[in-house]
Amino acid sequence: MTGPRPVVGLDLGGTKIDAALVADDGSLLARRSVPTPASEGPEAVLDALAAAADAVSGPDAVAVGVAAAGVIDPVSGTVTSATDTLRGWAGTALAEGLAARTGLPVACDNDVRAAAATELASLDGPDGSMVYVAVGTGVGGAVAAAGRILNGTAGIAGHLGHVPSPEAAGLPCTCGATGHLEAIAAGPAIAAHYARTTGTATGPLQRIAAYASHGDPHALSAIVLGAQALGRVLGGLANALGPERVVVAGGVPRIGTLYWDALCEAFTDQLMPPIGELRPQPPRVGHDAAVLGAAALTRTLPLHNPRTTGAPR
Amino acid sequence: MTGPRPVVGLDLGGTKIDAALVADDGSLLARRSVPTPASEGPEAVLDALAAAADAVSGPDAVAVGVAAAGVIDPVSGTVTSATDTLRGWAGTALAEGLAARTGLPVACDNDVRAAAATELASLDGPDGSMVYVAVGTGVGGAVAAAGRILNGTAGIAGHLGHVPSPEAAGLPCTCGATGHLEAIAAGPAIAAHYARTTGTATGPLQRIAAYASHGDPHALSAIVLGAQALGRVLGGLANALGPERVVVAGGVPRIGTLYWDALCEAFTDQLMPPIGELRPQPPRVGHDAAVLGAAALTRTLPLHNPRTTGAPR
Repeated sequence: MTGPRPVVGLDLGGTKIDAALVADDGSLLARRSVPTPASEGPEAVLDALAAAADAVSGPDAVAVGVAAAGVIDPVSGTVTSATDTLRGWAGTALAEGLAARTGLPVACDNDVRAAAATELASLDGPDGSMVYVAVGTGVGGAVAAAGRILNGTAGIAGHLGHVPSPEAAGLPCTCGATGHLEAIAAGPAIAAHYARTTGTATGPLQRIAAYASHGDPHALSAIVLGAQALGRVLGGLANALGPERVVVAGGVPRIGTLYWDALCEAFTDQLMPPIGELRPQPPRVGHDAAVLGAAALTRTLPLHNPRTTGAPR
Repeated sequence: MTGPRPVVGLDLGGTKIDAALVADDGSLLARRSVPTPASEGPEAVLDALAAAADAVSGPDAVAVGVAAAGVIDPVSGTVTSATDTLRGWAGTALAEGLAARTGLPVACDNDVRAAAATELASLDGPDGSMVYVAVGTGVGGAVAAAGRILNGTAGIAGHLGHVPSPEAAGLPCTCGATGHLEAIAAGPAIAAHYARTTGTATGPLQRIAAYASHGDPHALSAIVLGAQALGRVLGGLANALGPERVVVAGGVPRIGTLYWDALCEAFTDQLMPPIGELRPQPPRVGHDAAVLGAAALTRTLPLHNPRTTGAPR
């Protein structure tokens, strides 16, 4: 076959699935977003992923790359471990389940690592080092050294949300431990902090951000606290690793200047003098990093093919 | 010249200088320890380093490797940055000053990174990943990925003492920030915590350890708090980096079981399930890692030669 060989990129987050058809040259030929049925179990999530892929793939798509929440093993194509953001997600045979539903070969990896790889590729030179964090429903990340994204034992490297945070002292984390960054800095954690300090029911982060824009002091302090907690942990990681770039991605930082100023100040306060000029930055690649990274997985990772033999069930 | 070409290894810490003459095969031919004149300024420290080198070198030594506290630039041979542990140490022309005093070529690097390189070389296989921390007068460290010790921007990678620690909230750190691990987990920090809680003058860590061995509850809790703070930060770094090994070296962990049990429990409590079996371990190479690593610097890093031209001053 000659001509374009587009692939489907799927970005599975805790609240939505982004799907795109991506051409060889990296251009996006089609896009679709659907809600993640996070509380309905892994079969429902696989069905939603397949439906999103079908909605963009057309007749030409030759493979699917999926960037998914949780600890993902690209070799076995399974979810090694996951928090409760997606109910029952740990242990899911992601690649096999999606290959069976779409009829296409599937590659998979952790969602944040896929987006970070896109970002790393945008750096000058082949030896880039980077701390990349994505703050949304959870706090994920990736660490790159000498031009490579680190995988770590069991593919765990980059779980920056599960580093102790002074601001999160005593708060339960989605991973089962207490006091981790994710428990104060993730979007739902900021909303939960607002609810705790005001005695109200927990609402979506967007509502807290709207309150803050109208000067609600509890909303302002919940957002600032989340940003400070993140800035402090990132500053400490910068001292420990000395990255060229620190990238802060995801939906929560889009709250705006209020968030970004608190983040930068807390970050800078941590820095040792030799790296005192380092500052966190938004991603260069922007919103499409995750689906582009997901599509690129089909060229760099093992493909899991749909089963073509054996009795149909 | 044929025959053995021994080199001098110097390990400069905040309280003492260890010197050794190391043969080609890594065996130690002579040893000497002298106190570090930490409060007397850089010229006094260079003089003490040179005297320690002279005491072990004999007529055969062909080079000096020095592993020193602070952020060291091996290329320029200077101290990029340092805490107040050694007064006026930042900016010192370490390699040049020591070459002038000993008449031998000198290579230099950060002390903990030199010891960690010795440890990394002891791991199986060429792609080892490791988080290495040394707890003594300060809290230093090194991070290895894909078989290489990371240098980071300005040589800063491995400064694990300057990561935020919930247990250190509000405490001033030697680097100028507040709330860093070193401010609660270094030997002097444990002693200072004991002094704060008892209203007594600060004594040496050895005295606090002796009190603890006789059941003094304040001494026990100061030691346990330092160990817990370290364990918690290391557990978070393990989630973020997924190292094969976590090594805890230095004088403070030699307090014994009390320290080690608290460290391991706090560490384990942080771990995400996929790395739940990881445990911190003492170094394999033991006490000689630093001087062996220092001697090995002369084979892997740039040598700074004594000036042989120009008018003597």
